[in-house]
Amino acid sequence: MKPQTLKGFRDFLPEEMAVRSRVRKILTDVFESYGFEPLETPTLEYQSVLLEKYGKEVDKLVYTFEDKGGRKVGMRYDLTVPLARVAAANQNNLPTPFKRYQIQPVWRADKPQKGRYREIQMCDIDILNSSSPLSDAEILAVISSSLKKLGLKDFTIRVNSRSILFAILEEAKVEKNQLIPTLQSLDKLDKLSDLEVKSELREKKKLSQPVIDQIFEVINELQQLKVIRSKLAEGDVLKIPFEKIQPPINELKSVLKYAYGMGVSPENIVIDLFLSRGLDYYTGSIFETIVTQPKIGSITGGGRYDRLIKQLGGPDWPAVGTTFGLDRICDTIIDNQLWPKIKSTVTNALMTTFNQQLVSNSLSLARELRDQGINTELYPDPEVKLDKQLKYADRKGIPYVVILGPDEVAKGVATVKNMKTGDQKSVPLAELPKVLHD
Amino acid sequence: MKPQTLKGFRDFLPEEMAVRSRVRKILTDVFESYGFEPLETPTLEYQSVLLEKYGKEVDKLVYTFEDKGGRKVGMRYDLTVPLARVAAANQNNLPTPFKRYQIQPVWRADKPQKGRYREIQMCDIDILNSSSPLSDAEILAVISSSLKKLGLKDFTIRVNSRSILFAILEEAKVEKNQLIPTLQSLDKLDKLSDLEVKSELREKKKLSQPVIDQIFEVINELQQLKVIRSKLAEGDVLKIPFEKIQPPINELKSVLKYAYGMGVSPENIVIDLFLSRGLDYYTGSIFETIVTQPKIGSITGGGRYDRLIKQLGGPDWPAVGTTFGLDRICDTIIDNQLWPKIKSTVTNALMTTFNQQLVSNSLSLARELRDQGINTELYPDPEVKLDKQLKYADRKGIPYVVILGPDEVAKGVATVKNMKTGDQKSVPLAELPKVLHD
Repeated sequence: MKPQTLKGFRDFLPEEMAVRSRVRKILTDVFESYGFEPLETPTLEYQSVLLEKYGKEVDKLVYTFEDKGGRKVGMRYDLTVPLARVAAANQNNLPTPFKRYQIQPVWRADKPQKGRYREIQMCDIDILNSSSPLSDAEILAVISSSLKKLGLKDFTIRVNSRSILFAILEEAKVEKNQLIPTLQSLDKLDKLSDLEVKSELREKKKLSQPVIDQIFEVINELQQLKVIRSKLAEGDVLKIPFEKIQPPINELKSVLKYAYGMGVSPENIVIDLFLSRGLDYYTGSIFETIVTQPKIGSITGGGRYDRLIKQLGGPDWPAVGTTFGLDRICDTIIDNQLWPKIKSTVTNALMTTFNQQLVSNSLSLARELRDQGINTELYPDPEVKLDKQLKYADRKGIPYVVILGPDEVAKGVATVKNMKTGDQKSVPLAELPKVLHD
Repeated sequence: MKPQTLKGFRDFLPEEMAVRSRVRKILTDVFESYGFEPLETPTLEYQSVLLEKYGKEVDKLVYTFEDKGGRKVGMRYDLTVPLARVAAANQNNLPTPFKRYQIQPVWRADKPQKGRYREIQMCDIDILNSSSPLSDAEILAVISSSLKKLGLKDFTIRVNSRSILFAILEEAKVEKNQLIPTLQSLDKLDKLSDLEVKSELREKKKLSQPVIDQIFEVINELQQLKVIRSKLAEGDVLKIPFEKIQPPINELKSVLKYAYGMGVSPENIVIDLFLSRGLDYYTGSIFETIVTQPKIGSITGGGRYDRLIKQLGGPDWPAVGTTFGLDRICDTIIDNQLWPKIKSTVTNALMTTFNQQLVSNSLSLARELRDQGINTELYPDPEVKLDKQLKYADRKGIPYVVILGPDEVAKGVATVKNMKTGDQKSVPLAELPKVLHD
């Protein structure tokens, strides 16, 4: 038999895990610094929970099956819908605003390609039961803090608002039941050309040519406004040529004002009125982050979803949040060698075993070192020659090797070899923990 | 719609997550102190990888389905078979002995009951390509260190060896193809009575009554030996009444001798010759841990599996390891209130928002506190009255609340309220981080 993984699924060996664990730790620390608290939800949910929340095209990408009890189940597609289900089920005992983070995988039966996998590690933050623009702004602040802490300096957060888009589409006379399908097509603008998207709107979404032209014209015109290009950072009142668009623009302005007050740099923000996000459930502000170098797709995506929790049988809680794609973040860090100094092992020392007679000395010393906080691996086979044990330490990148042979035992010392320099010295046992700590 | 989870699947809200995260952290630290390194594998595997490794009865409990590409896939049932697959696929670039830990969920379509779930968080350690008894011993040492660090003092590690069991069964004239089925029945001795197991051996496994009686007699007789009762800790040569059983008893003796040398206390060890473990793949030493108070089933299980990696198309690497059941460990800690002092939140302070005019002051101060390493939650809505913001901090267990009203801003101070004592004091802004740190 051939030992294979499924396409789109990956093993993470220790070297890659070092990066992944560090990214998780940094994100967790930033999330907790803003008062987000951990939550975990099941891998499998009833299909009735998962489906008809994301949109028809996305529903096809959910892993669904019948379990052995005949229940129609599915694997988590994102962390937002399960969160909304948790909120619905626990509405009476959750203090709100409820701020949670969640770091768990999701599964998407999508076509695998570079940067797109079928098993994806998601890191989400969300604020439930707050309609305040301060909450939208805080999501942007956490994105900015996190990426800076990760060492990803060259990022752009694209922001927009579904409310602005809905107003534009209404202005262009798009019918109500065509609003979401139209947004789904616009969402493809980063993969398809303008012409291809226009053709999809005409052929598949059945919009008339004048309506389509009007949409692109309005967005292009707005996008040119000084106030938009200056990222809504100015104090003066906007003059928008379309009346209905004024209020949602003002809302977005508040969000950005607060975000700047929270430390987000306007240099990292782009208002992109073509940004629409693919999922049905967004209702207000939307955002995604791209790392300019290299281009591997967006590494965060999120927005406001004020009706999802109610749709899942819960209370009428407005909510906003974002997801960080751990896989793409790690790909970026690894591909660009952003963390050249991260060590692939956290083991500090290899305790060798010299021969059967001296094994018990090695056991005691290894135990002593661990008690002193030194990660110490014991070589398990005293029959293996010492130089092979040293070679093993070298291959694993373990920085120090400790040797306890008959001479050392007689003198009450250990030989310590620095694997990087090759230096070797004799150290009294009592001083060994200190020497290895330094 | 009703927001339900599937039976046997659970949400973990922040309070429970506090315990789960701490347990994971403690186990990770212990694993790393022994030189184990992290690995993660996919949730889904080909059915050909998963099935026919555990045994027929267990195969029925694997979640299997056909994916949208018609591939026969299944969800991880344990972390051992995926590890063996990784070893097979990476045999040429893994330095061995390969010591890895893995903390991921597994899924079992088992009957849910107290302490038994369908989604289970597993924490595994394994040592590949080592047949040394030092490796078996190290697994016992890690179990002992981990449980002590977790504060679970009253535990018993039951140890035995499949080699001893095979010798006993051969002595009792059990036929070769009946060895594993017989062990599977013996494995039920902690759930069923002797009589029920004997009846299963007779009715389902087709063993004759004399053979069955012989098995129980031999095991009972051995179990009474002083050398077994004294946990093989003695130096003298054993006198076993059955010749074939001598060599595997000696092997187990080496394992225990080394384990004691690594710091395992004989008080935490019981040699239980009836212990057989349910899975097909074990070949040598086997162990499981029970917490005496309360009885919620075993919290670790493992052993030596010298043929599994080869069975998966890999090299002929002997291997040994154990799993820790995170759910049962957490249940034990929570049910017995072993960690009364663990805080349900890691948030240090709530930064209130007084009114629209003063929001920006609150934003700056919250940012400043976070920069100083203080986890600070910002209350997102200045329209909400201050006493409601305080009540929120109280419900969430946030220890300090920071207030910035017009008086405070005028004086360049903040009011800090200790939510436990109710004390309130005025603190100059520059001193605030220090005050909150203390």
